[in-house]
Amino acid sequence: MEGMMKVAVMTGIRKMGFEERPIPQPKEDEVLVRLDYVGICGSDLHYYETGAIGDYVVEPPFVLGHEPGGVVVEVGQAVSHLKVGDRVALEPGKTCGHCEFCREGKYNLCRDVIFFATPPVDGVFQEYVAHEADLCFKLPDHVSTLEGALIEPLAVGFHAAVQGDAHLGQKAVVMGAGCIGLVSMMALKARGVSEVYVVDIMEKRLEKAMELGAAGVVNGKKEEVAERIKELTGGKGADLVIETAGAEITSKQAVQIAGKGATIVFVGYSPTGEVSLPMSLALDKELNFKTVFRYRHIYPMAIQAVADGKVNLKGIVTDEFSLDEADKAMEVSLNHKADIVKAVIKIHGR
Amino acid sequence: MEGMMKVAVMTGIRKMGFEERPIPQPKEDEVLVRLDYVGICGSDLHYYETGAIGDYVVEPPFVLGHEPGGVVVEVGQAVSHLKVGDRVALEPGKTCGHCEFCREGKYNLCRDVIFFATPPVDGVFQEYVAHEADLCFKLPDHVSTLEGALIEPLAVGFHAAVQGDAHLGQKAVVMGAGCIGLVSMMALKARGVSEVYVVDIMEKRLEKAMELGAAGVVNGKKEEVAERIKELTGGKGADLVIETAGAEITSKQAVQIAGKGATIVFVGYSPTGEVSLPMSLALDKELNFKTVFRYRHIYPMAIQAVADGKVNLKGIVTDEFSLDEADKAMEVSLNHKADIVKAVIKIHGR
Amino acid sequence: MEGMMKVAVMTGIRKMGFEERPIPQPKEDEVLVRLDYVGICGSDLHYYETGAIGDYVVEPPFVLGHEPGGVVVEVGQAVSHLKVGDRVALEPGKTCGHCEFCREGKYNLCRDVIFFATPPVDGVFQEYVAHEADLCFKLPDHVSTLEGALIEPLAVGFHAAVQGDAHLGQKAVVMGAGCIGLVSMMALKARGVSEVYVVDIMEKRLEKAMELGAAGVVNGKKEEVAERIKELTGGKGADLVIETAGAEITSKQAVQIAGKGATIVFVGYSPTGEVSLPMSLALDKELNFKTVFRYRHIYPMAIQAVADGKVNLKGIVTDEFSLDEADKAMEVSLNHKADIVKAVIKIHGR
Amino acid sequence: MEGMMKVAVMTGIRKMGFEERPIPQPKEDEVLVRLDYVGICGSDLHYYETGAIGDYVVEPPFVLGHEPGGVVVEVGQAVSHLKVGDRVALEPGKTCGHCEFCREGKYNLCRDVIFFATPPVDGVFQEYVAHEADLCFKLPDHVSTLEGALIEPLAVGFHAAVQGDAHLGQKAVVMGAGCIGLVSMMALKARGVSEVYVVDIMEKRLEKAMELGAAGVVNGKKEEVAERIKELTGGKGADLVIETAGAEITSKQAVQIAGKGATIVFVGYSPTGEVSLPMSLALDKELNFKTVFRYRHIYPMAIQAVADGKVNLKGIVTDEFSLDEADKAMEVSLNHKADIVKAVIKIHGR
Repeated sequence: MEGMMKVAVMTGIRKMGFEERPIPQPKEDEVLVRLDYVGICGSDLHYYETGAIGDYVVEPPFVLGHEPGGVVVEVGQAVSHLKVGDRVALEPGKTCGHCEFCREGKYNLCRDVIFFATPPVDGVFQEYVAHEADLCFKLPDHVSTLEGALIEPLAVGFHAAVQGDAHLGQKAVVMGAGCIGLVSMMALKARGVSEVYVVDIMEKRLEKAMELGAAGVVNGKKEEVAERIKELTGGKGADLVIETAGAEITSKQAVQIAGKGATIVFVGYSPTGEVSLPMSLALDKELNFKTVFRYRHIYPMAIQAVADGKVNLKGIVTDEFSLDEADKAMEVSLNHKADIVKAVIKIHGR
Repeated sequence: MEGMMKVAVMTGIRKMGFEERPIPQPKEDEVLVRLDYVGICGSDLHYYETGAIGDYVVEPPFVLGHEPGGVVVEVGQAVSHLKVGDRVALEPGKTCGHCEFCREGKYNLCRDVIFFATPPVDGVFQEYVAHEADLCFKLPDHVSTLEGALIEPLAVGFHAAVQGDAHLGQKAVVMGAGCIGLVSMMALKARGVSEVYVVDIMEKRLEKAMELGAAGVVNGKKEEVAERIKELTGGKGADLVIETAGAEITSKQAVQIAGKGATIVFVGYSPTGEVSLPMSLALDKELNFKTVFRYRHIYPMAIQAVADGKVNLKGIVTDEFSLDEADKAMEVSLNHKADIVKAVIKIHGR
Repeated sequence: MEGMMKVAVMTGIRKMGFEERPIPQPKEDEVLVRLDYVGICGSDLHYYETGAIGDYVVEPPFVLGHEPGGVVVEVGQAVSHLKVGDRVALEPGKTCGHCEFCREGKYNLCRDVIFFATPPVDGVFQEYVAHEADLCFKLPDHVSTLEGALIEPLAVGFHAAVQGDAHLGQKAVVMGAGCIGLVSMMALKARGVSEVYVVDIMEKRLEKAMELGAAGVVNGKKEEVAERIKELTGGKGADLVIETAGAEITSKQAVQIAGKGATIVFVGYSPTGEVSLPMSLALDKELNFKTVFRYRHIYPMAIQAVADGKVNLKGIVTDEFSLDEADKAMEVSLNHKADIVKAVIKIHGR
Repeated sequence: MEGMMKVAVMTGIRKMGFEERPIPQPKEDEVLVRLDYVGICGSDLHYYETGAIGDYVVEPPFVLGHEPGGVVVEVGQAVSHLKVGDRVALEPGKTCGHCEFCREGKYNLCRDVIFFATPPVDGVFQEYVAHEADLCFKLPDHVSTLEGALIEPLAVGFHAAVQGDAHLGQKAVVMGAGCIGLVSMMALKARGVSEVYVVDIMEKRLEKAMELGAAGVVNGKKEEVAERIKELTGGKGADLVIETAGAEITSKQAVQIAGKGATIVFVGYSPTGEVSLPMSLALDKELNFKTVFRYRHIYPMAIQAVADGKVNLKGIVTDEFSLDEADKAMEVSLNHKADIVKAVIKIHGR
């Protein structure tokens, strides 16, 4: 497809601008996707606000955005499983396929992964993207491209659930009711977990958690978390805790509320990178800790869960902006963190 | 067996005395064991020095010691697998067999466990003990009762190795070259791990590690641990780390030296109970943390490993005292921690 | 509770009679349960029809029945978690708690298990039973004692699902739509499996499978099973197959329809004990076979799944008889195997 | 490297000839290897004798041989981890890296694998081969290219050991003492299994098994296998059985000798493809069956095990032929199956 497309670019810290760039040409194993929706992730906001995450430093102009959903408009010659008009969710990381991690199936740890919106690789706040066809997953008829875009954060939640071996019969607690906390909660439920409780300190988020299916919520500002979870679990503690808040206090609470032999999955990054944990208590209870880096092997399962109605993905979207409003989208998101669960940029979506 | 026996009792903080007590009568599912050797564990020293570990508080007179090996001298009526004269290693924890943890096979987490030398349950610095026969494991002909006594600490090392799924092909690092560090190193090797490196800050302990089979050692005072392990593992980091030192610095190093997707097993208790960990780095590498509380299902395997010559258990014994010298044994152990790998009390041993 | 109770006894092959026996006295760790419902299992019918299953030979008078639900009417002194009036499901096997299998958590393999209605141990086609309180699981308010009785066969289905590690994202096939096939199908769904197909040769059973939630059914008499499953799974074959029919043809089909790397769980016993399998095909696909012997650790999870509405247990009951009709219950069950999914004996049930 | 090389080709059933072919040019991600040794596998003999294995049909001229070891003589531009002069073991299967199995780390099940000597892909009974560098594993100084060639069959044994989760403390039985039986036995021992017993019907092979480290052997012609293994395992049966013989009788025995809850790994292909198994007995014992198709992720571990002296790979070689004797090598191997454990073709080996 010939022509130019609009691209929202980060031109500096807290500065967004626009560029016209050529619509990319798909290689033979790629498809060209016209993007309908791209979600705004906390990492996008972090790059936008500070210019870096750890060793990854933005060099403007840089394109943010790695949660895309759209429609196939052109198909590379070697691609057989997709055709023009297919609506797809795009898994954002291209992996090498050859390193030891790829070979062992842990491709999320690939040494040479190329991941949207991770410097120096541009993201997808733009009209079109050419992407490896094997990373574009066809959506069933009744799953929208908005939901397609949100498969990406949902994949993190599902990976946490898989890492924690979440299953029927467990009582689980999710620390944090932001976007990742909520999708984790829904992922646990989709895997059959019987009771999922959610802990946060913002009443609005806890209401959202109840609305989306939590068995109960605990407001950490008003209630004694460890005490409350003890009650809710019949004194035994949680079988599984998903820590998405990244705070030291919630990390410590995770250890306190976990039952003997339980598993804690750490998903949220702490602002300082360091967390002080009551390890002696963890040893006394012989806890297992798992951690989550992105996800692997999740997209088909996550799409199916949405298609089956097991996950209400639309329910997490609180704000929608147009591509022209990219600047506003970022500023509003930064300034109203407490109120926004998930904001998306509507590009060609209806 | 009628008669009285000598018992070394802790009569106060850093005070040992002796009592004459009746030789216990074995119940129908018990055997009476004449003790040959009892190891001195760090927890014995801690109770002796401070009077408590966490919520467990010594009320004198209290008997220390939970690492016993001896000879069966009387057999309960319902016992069929042991006979008088059998030499045995005694697993020190009697479990209820009915709680959810017992039922699930995680009997080390039993809600009602009765464990030697854990207040208020007396230990075995004494001449005889009556113990559940199912917890007395017969030693093969060429395994001594000294080795039988040391099966207990070895069991901790093996449980760490099992928790970490240690296996052939891995490169592993053990943090700490004390008794538990050394038995962990030997346990890893017995399970087939190809290369085990040991980190400590005392040269003497590192020499012992080399003597007992480490592939290499790193002195944390003289060398940059993370750098050195990177070299030793071809830049990849360790597949498995066993943290036995319980220090914050070694716990942090454990995270630093672990390779992507690796597992760290936490065994050592930190003095403060809290440890600050670089959790963001752990997430980036998607590390797994396991913890160890005592052990389960280990005795037969550990005894066999010793019998097969895969573990040199005698090699860790540096000091031997008689029961009459119990006082001296404790004081010397406290005052020469750096020099003593493992001290044992010889009771009836030859 | 003093007094006599009515007991239906098998007095010979295809002969049922009644006896008056004293109402049992619960021991201190037991409760006395007034039975509301007892399900009739295929093994009850087999003993009734032939007098034996393998090495287990009935010596009349013998009491059949091992699927009981009822109400606690008396509580042993050491029991704290149950009280008079609690409605309960009874797990029928008392285990020793001490053998290697009990210790490892595989208590279903206990060397000394005492299991209702497994000769020489009597079953529960009777008004009352005294049973280990730890094996009596309290039912939530809205779960009936009829459902309580049926937790037993459901537990087999759940154990099959657990053995097969059934999870969200899989496509599964259940061979056989009898009682165990249907509960297995529901167990898979409760654990989150996205699509479960059921294969049988009786149209009536397949209708029941659809009614209870199968994603689709295949009539092995009318359709080419392997071909049909290939279509339904997009050419990949099933991720998980649960074989409950016990026939050689369905066992072979299980291997044929399994995808590469898939797992087959064998639940059904073949009449001859021997099954010829296409093992070279199994090796080419690197299949895993799991087997099921009763169940372990399932009751709480199964009860919760019923309470949550994830399993429609009442839906499998097709026939109900009174205790007085025990004779008729057995004969009708034997003579109308094709039509009866699950028959129960109502004792005190309303 | 310019020039021609000698290639031994199968020109028809039981017919070998020679061709001159150009020495291949390595692509940028390949290396050119001068072959020192190539092992002769049972599948090579089967193709040679019958012209086909299942759906794989030889179309002459066809090159047999897929167990190569040699020396790197030319290196593609993109290859950094190998250099001219490196001695290497070659993993014979190139995989696509993109299909669902490759992505999940089960690359041995890759839909598009290209495997030496599997029609229509030629093997390596020839002087040189160009091969993907990532599949060429450098040998340590003291591991010979003869051992390098034999890493391939050893990998099957290790994959069986890994599939069966072989570990310290187990008692294992290997059915069959041919090449794969013997390498399986050594693989089990290298992973720490304490006692490995080997069953065969040829005394010579059993002697070899003892020589290479079996804890004991059972001659199935002279002894009652099930009875004997029961004795050797203290009445409990084997924890792990590796079936390499592919016979119905040994497959049945595998089920009989397995202890409760044990795992059987099926490695050997039965001549008919079908095996009749006592499945009711398997269910009663709740056995697990695993199967083996080639291997994955094994080469580095296997090479290390040989380097460490844990596996005596040279010990299985009974016969050596030159490339010029390829015809004789095949005929002798066919005609003396009982006497030959492993024959190799020496090409440039010293």
